[in-house]
Amino acid sequence: MHPVKVGLLGLGTVGGGVVNVLLRNSSEIARRAGRGIRVTHASMRTLNKKRICPTEGIILTDQPMTVVNNPDIDIVVELIGGTTRARELVMKAIANGKHVVTANKALIALHGNEIFAEAQKQGVIVAFEAAVAGGIPIIKIIREGLSGNRINWVAGIINGTTNFILTEMREKGREFNDVLKEAQAKGYAEADPTFDVEGIDAAHKLTILSAIAFGVPLNFPAVYTEGITKIDREDVTYAEQFGYRIKHLGFARRTSQGVEARVHPTLIPEKRLIANVNGVMNAVVVRGDAVGPTLYYGAGAGAEPTASSVISDLVDVVRSLTTDPENRVPHLAFQASTIAQDVRFLDIEEVKTGYYLRMTVLDQPGVLAHVATVLSEAGISIEAVTQREPPSGAKHACIVLITHAVLEQRMSLALEKIEALPEIVGKVVRLRVETLDA
Amino acid sequence: MHPVKVGLLGLGTVGGGVVNVLLRNSSEIARRAGRGIRVTHASMRTLNKKRICPTEGIILTDQPMTVVNNPDIDIVVELIGGTTRARELVMKAIANGKHVVTANKALIALHGNEIFAEAQKQGVIVAFEAAVAGGIPIIKIIREGLSGNRINWVAGIINGTTNFILTEMREKGREFNDVLKEAQAKGYAEADPTFDVEGIDAAHKLTILSAIAFGVPLNFPAVYTEGITKIDREDVTYAEQFGYRIKHLGFARRTSQGVEARVHPTLIPEKRLIANVNGVMNAVVVRGDAVGPTLYYGAGAGAEPTASSVISDLVDVVRSLTTDPENRVPHLAFQASTIAQDVRFLDIEEVKTGYYLRMTVLDQPGVLAHVATVLSEAGISIEAVTQREPPSGAKHACIVLITHAVLEQRMSLALEKIEALPEIVGKVVRLRVETLDA
Repeated sequence: MHPVKVGLLGLGTVGGGVVNVLLRNSSEIARRAGRGIRVTHASMRTLNKKRICPTEGIILTDQPMTVVNNPDIDIVVELIGGTTRARELVMKAIANGKHVVTANKALIALHGNEIFAEAQKQGVIVAFEAAVAGGIPIIKIIREGLSGNRINWVAGIINGTTNFILTEMREKGREFNDVLKEAQAKGYAEADPTFDVEGIDAAHKLTILSAIAFGVPLNFPAVYTEGITKIDREDVTYAEQFGYRIKHLGFARRTSQGVEARVHPTLIPEKRLIANVNGVMNAVVVRGDAVGPTLYYGAGAGAEPTASSVISDLVDVVRSLTTDPENRVPHLAFQASTIAQDVRFLDIEEVKTGYYLRMTVLDQPGVLAHVATVLSEAGISIEAVTQREPPSGAKHACIVLITHAVLEQRMSLALEKIEALPEIVGKVVRLRVETLDA
Repeated sequence: MHPVKVGLLGLGTVGGGVVNVLLRNSSEIARRAGRGIRVTHASMRTLNKKRICPTEGIILTDQPMTVVNNPDIDIVVELIGGTTRARELVMKAIANGKHVVTANKALIALHGNEIFAEAQKQGVIVAFEAAVAGGIPIIKIIREGLSGNRINWVAGIINGTTNFILTEMREKGREFNDVLKEAQAKGYAEADPTFDVEGIDAAHKLTILSAIAFGVPLNFPAVYTEGITKIDREDVTYAEQFGYRIKHLGFARRTSQGVEARVHPTLIPEKRLIANVNGVMNAVVVRGDAVGPTLYYGAGAGAEPTASSVISDLVDVVRSLTTDPENRVPHLAFQASTIAQDVRFLDIEEVKTGYYLRMTVLDQPGVLAHVATVLSEAGISIEAVTQREPPSGAKHACIVLITHAVLEQRMSLALEKIEALPEIVGKVVRLRVETLDA
């Protein structure tokens, strides 16, 4: 059978990786897919730039729409990023009856509902394994590998940049800004690191994971998002003393009240495997009611890990080229007509979680008792507490404590009262704690 | 659409789990699969035994062949275990044009080549996700999720019983026999634990992993198999002092000489995530050339984790019921006609690995020098060594060392020479070391 023809939109790091891996493993891939997969066209912004892959045999253009409109091309791979132009190109490819593979998490998180509705109508596949957790086949795992389960929750280290920064802060006692600069120099972080360090990238990915885990629409605005820019080295150290690690976690859970989806720095018990995922690596824990907790670990970014996911999507599409669209794996794991449109997403104030609190206090007797009284009156129980005496001559001591799970709203009210105590200096540092134990 | 009709062969722990999960999650599963999945028939050895699941609406029989021959049944799920009767039933189901789902690792490892050839001829699916690593969807991950990669190696903790025993030995300093008895009492180990503790169960699973990773036939006799019965508590302790954990590992690698596949106790650096997989849990590390190392972790056994895999296979089959057999995911990951029949499997003597050696020696000067000389003359380099003085009054000291990777044959010859040294008492304990670093 003649090879399947692929048109790439974008021939940068990931696009180059896709070409390289397809060439290097062409025989094995064809042995799996039943036919060859060949990149015949590629579009790029600047035609004369040096590429990380050979371009012989590939028709190059700086007009991506010509790739999308080319009747010879079977599958379009979108790797340009962004959400405006990418959306136009993907929608046009679908309208042209082409299957689409994309690595674009923002596109899927923000416009996926519209894209999949159109794909459904046209009977084409839009595959997006590379959009979440790089080379880890987490979309396939949740959508197909755990399809017998009611998924209870998903927790993921899904941004390598923030995990690298937090790992360096813990292992080497470095400061956030110092590590961020190194990450930028090493290419782990963008020149404008906002998407990574403010948690937006992770929120895009969590949007996608929540939809396929729970059978709900993609709902990016409902994801509570907090970055790691305010994490102090001191908190990393205290967390460790309590037996926890601070990770930037995407966490989504189904509760009787609705779906909660949130991205924020989180203390996790160090004995959990995911607490030991370091550097730029990613990992996702999925808890299904039948299978229990499962964990998936691997490279979350990079040319070839991302290419690995793009190509596995291509192989899937090739295997489905002649199948009846009605019987394919549904885009968002659940049949389009059964996606629960009416499920409520919880506000962060409605979430129940444990807390880590650090407060600067005047060095005088009874402070801890006052704090404990406020918490106790709010029905908040303390799991562990430590009070550190001030260095000699200093006026301020420090109280650090960890609470059991409590409604965020209730904690916020209690914190207002604590901050109003005359012995408390400034604001209380508050981080969330997840034990991930059931 | 009317529900798909499933006939179960076996209604014990796993069969009961399948019925329970299908009932509990029926709505979610139908939302994913596009139609319901219903167990309509089940066979069992003893009809009047109490079951862990409701049996209303299921036609029960003690004649499994009547299930296999029933024209109303779409999919047969084989859960009776063993390889004689199971093989007859599965072959007959295939001949009858039925799709088959099985959790039977021995059946696939020993008779899979024949079974898949027949299934290919009949155009039916034989799915076996539950045969390896319980609820972890490792078959799907390797076969589909990493299909862009050339798989370099696979390393797995794929037997929960042995991992439980080794974990208890390490964490609590207990002896092998003592823990084995507890495992039997807890139901983690069979009354006859041979299959688990001698590594046969793990070898069945590694046979399957090797085939789908490398595109080679199932070749159980080629798997070198060594159990954990000879592991001494002392070795667990020494390994730890060197920064390693002893795990019962299934390890398969593709080398320029051929495929190696071996199951044996293995020292792994404790900093590797897989070294921290404890108790009855399973984990598999897969290294692909594009994705790099990835790890998959979860429950390796139990009614519902196994049911999770059986049901994900059922959903896959349902999604493929109307598809063209030519375009399905191939049984063994690679198209049947492209499975490499001529690949050589290496003998254990041809394998290169690191070694842990522990020897009892006379307490006199120069022993370490003699041992080091033998190793050095054999071109074997030492990574770490420790010599322990005898307790006062005792005549024997102890030398423990770890070597870099060397051909097993070369190590065997060196060990013969070492054991012939007059200062060496008895046999040298030899365990293999894998760093899993690339």
